[in-house]
Amino acid sequence: MTPIGVGPQQAGRNLDPWFDSYAARTAGLSASEVRALFAVASRPEVVSLAGGMPFVEALPEELIESAFRTMMSEHGAEALQYGGGQGIPQIREMILEVMALEGITDASADDIVTTTGSQHALDLVAKLFLDPGDVVLAESPSYVGAIGTFRSYQADVVHVDIDADGLDPDALSATITRLRAEGRHIKFLYTVANFNNPSAITMSLERRRQILEICRREHILILEDNPYGLLYFDEPAPPAIRSLDADGVIYLGSFSKILSPGLRVGYVLAPHAIREKLILAVESSILSPSTFNQWVVTEYLRQSDWQEQIEEYRGVYRERRDAMDEALREHLPQFTWTKPGGGFFTWLQLSEDLDSKQMLPRAVTELVAYTPGTAFFADGRGHHEMRLSFCFPTPDRIRTGVRRLANVINGELELLDTFRGTTRRTIADTGVVTPPPNIN
Amino acid sequence: MTPIGVGPQQAGRNLDPWFDSYAARTAGLSASEVRALFAVASRPEVVSLAGGMPFVEALPEELIESAFRTMMSEHGAEALQYGGGQGIPQIREMILEVMALEGITDASADDIVTTTGSQHALDLVAKLFLDPGDVVLAESPSYVGAIGTFRSYQADVVHVDIDADGLDPDALSATITRLRAEGRHIKFLYTVANFNNPSAITMSLERRRQILEICRREHILILEDNPYGLLYFDEPAPPAIRSLDADGVIYLGSFSKILSPGLRVGYVLAPHAIREKLILAVESSILSPSTFNQWVVTEYLRQSDWQEQIEEYRGVYRERRDAMDEALREHLPQFTWTKPGGGFFTWLQLSEDLDSKQMLPRAVTELVAYTPGTAFFADGRGHHEMRLSFCFPTPDRIRTGVRRLANVINGELELLDTFRGTTRRTIADTGVVTPPPNIN
Repeated sequence: MTPIGVGPQQAGRNLDPWFDSYAARTAGLSASEVRALFAVASRPEVVSLAGGMPFVEALPEELIESAFRTMMSEHGAEALQYGGGQGIPQIREMILEVMALEGITDASADDIVTTTGSQHALDLVAKLFLDPGDVVLAESPSYVGAIGTFRSYQADVVHVDIDADGLDPDALSATITRLRAEGRHIKFLYTVANFNNPSAITMSLERRRQILEICRREHILILEDNPYGLLYFDEPAPPAIRSLDADGVIYLGSFSKILSPGLRVGYVLAPHAIREKLILAVESSILSPSTFNQWVVTEYLRQSDWQEQIEEYRGVYRERRDAMDEALREHLPQFTWTKPGGGFFTWLQLSEDLDSKQMLPRAVTELVAYTPGTAFFADGRGHHEMRLSFCFPTPDRIRTGVRRLANVINGELELLDTFRGTTRRTIADTGVVTPPPNIN
Repeated sequence: MTPIGVGPQQAGRNLDPWFDSYAARTAGLSASEVRALFAVASRPEVVSLAGGMPFVEALPEELIESAFRTMMSEHGAEALQYGGGQGIPQIREMILEVMALEGITDASADDIVTTTGSQHALDLVAKLFLDPGDVVLAESPSYVGAIGTFRSYQADVVHVDIDADGLDPDALSATITRLRAEGRHIKFLYTVANFNNPSAITMSLERRRQILEICRREHILILEDNPYGLLYFDEPAPPAIRSLDADGVIYLGSFSKILSPGLRVGYVLAPHAIREKLILAVESSILSPSTFNQWVVTEYLRQSDWQEQIEEYRGVYRERRDAMDEALREHLPQFTWTKPGGGFFTWLQLSEDLDSKQMLPRAVTELVAYTPGTAFFADGRGHHEMRLSFCFPTPDRIRTGVRRLANVINGELELLDTFRGTTRRTIADTGVVTPPPNIN
């Protein structure tokens, strides 16, 4: 995105004859740091700990083929046709069964709207609620794709501190008070309460109740984004916040992580009046979600032991989570990180003298990629953190990647020492240990 | 949509606890008249001349099945995975072949962005360009879905008169001059130049050149939406406006009418700088279009004689167009209508005393549905017109539908006569003939 200032604007004008025609909001549309990494990570020699791609190879293809065959023989003409903006009734009935596993048992298929993946739902909710200058509250750190979408409607994302149990209720209350004193309009609280992307933190049940109580009292809507809830490794996550309150929560779910992201099928469960507006927003944005894909998912859910398949995924990701955790213990014991109870990501806290964003080109040179923490903050923080994903690479590749990463970090520290004219630091003076000689 | 005013606002507040939280733009999101009709039209006893559903039954299902099998065996893991925001390169290469049939031979696959149907492209272009109060120029009448999407970004649609050759250049120049004198910002001209929805008018080549020249001179971008171009009945449409200018035209295409709308695959060809922003907008709205569906379309295009299949569709729709035209000649000869050279719709001009919107409930009672002309105007016009679609019903159903419609219209005219205390009118005094006794 061209920054503000005469020079770059002139450059933009010269390169793009339509430079003066864009809407004001378009200035907020910038390439995410994750996006730039996709190109890099696609080179096979690079171990990518950057992306959030599920390991779809763990899905037996015959399950999709069988669902497709039934769809074509029983609903062919319908699957190839336009559908309604809300999504087909059959998939919405099946979604009730999926949501029941998250503790949501009072929903009606009537209150579900299917979308083109759950990013689409984020976009639609943002479009419905966000005026320029409005505020969205979010965990600190928060999902890069949501931050980008909220910003694309010219809203400001304000982060609220978290601890090991998720959002801090005192910090939430204080943030609300401060923003309201400033005259700001808070439109909703966005939360990934289960196995958060990127922090891997899960909000405790007690915290869910406290956060909900604050939001009710302050009349703040909650946008609960739950793509990873069923992918737990040790014990299930607490029931969804939505299961505790039907009127104040918009709940987002997705088949991207428990089935396939290539199908782009997500869904929203929303209070009645909001659901009505969401349907209109779907129609305005795409007319109707793909009936073809909705039928593939419906028949997959009808025919397969899909819960068993989720158990398969849990096993795959648990093994990778363990590989990541063990590799970090071996190669980067001087730092702290979350050991995720589910989901796709580990959040690594570096020391203050390391800058994950500035270090990335060096990492890519050494054939490992990650996502700098800065991607997950709207306020410039995150330079000393990084997100490491363990969802896609095999355990062996994860170990290789972490070993390379340690190499990069240690090289960076040596460089810093050289500039400072100091000798190698030890844990006693910097909190960072000297890398062991066998690190390579 | 709740209209502005204290009463309805209070009602909204009572019914919806989040009534005060919506963005200003949400007030512009209203249920289209087409949408309300979908529910009605789905009853089998109603002959629907309302919707725009292609006749997908004319597509041999084995073509889709074969494309699916190849996709799964050769690109299974990729088809189930996230893709890039721009769409897979393979489909973009094939799209070049489709666009070449519309006269666009200078495009690069690099300048194509795939979308979730071409409505999604309309939404993304609107999001990129439209600030509140901006103006979009459009034909008079224009596509209901585009009008709704432009309004959902708080832009105003200003119609430009057309004649049998499409947009009137003098009217376009005068409208631009007037709007600029009023200080309005015109962001683009939206046109369905081929077999327009709803007017069925095709812009002549001479007009395309004239319109393009005006837009170049006035520095106004053209948004050319071309879903029906390949569905001609008599002779091909002139080359796309985009084929005459690569820098000033954003071109939208779709597989919804030449293959299947259930797949939701559309595309945009845009000047380089705009294309870059479109990719960011895709990512912000859905992360990436469905790889699964893009692969189905790609393999369909690779394996099938897709041009022959389009020829099949032409035959189906030509026959229906003829059935519609003949039925109108037989049952409603007192009115005027377009005989479409392609596409899905006929535009029927009623007399001034008939109101197509007000008459619709009566029509539904008599088991025929249509779309009132008001749906296709942003300025309240269209009460004396209606759109009749011939794409989905069989020729027999079309004849039945038009017969019922004539019955409705004649009943309405009798009612008007009764209120006026006049006797039945004849063509001599009102331009409307007495219905023949055998009309039922």
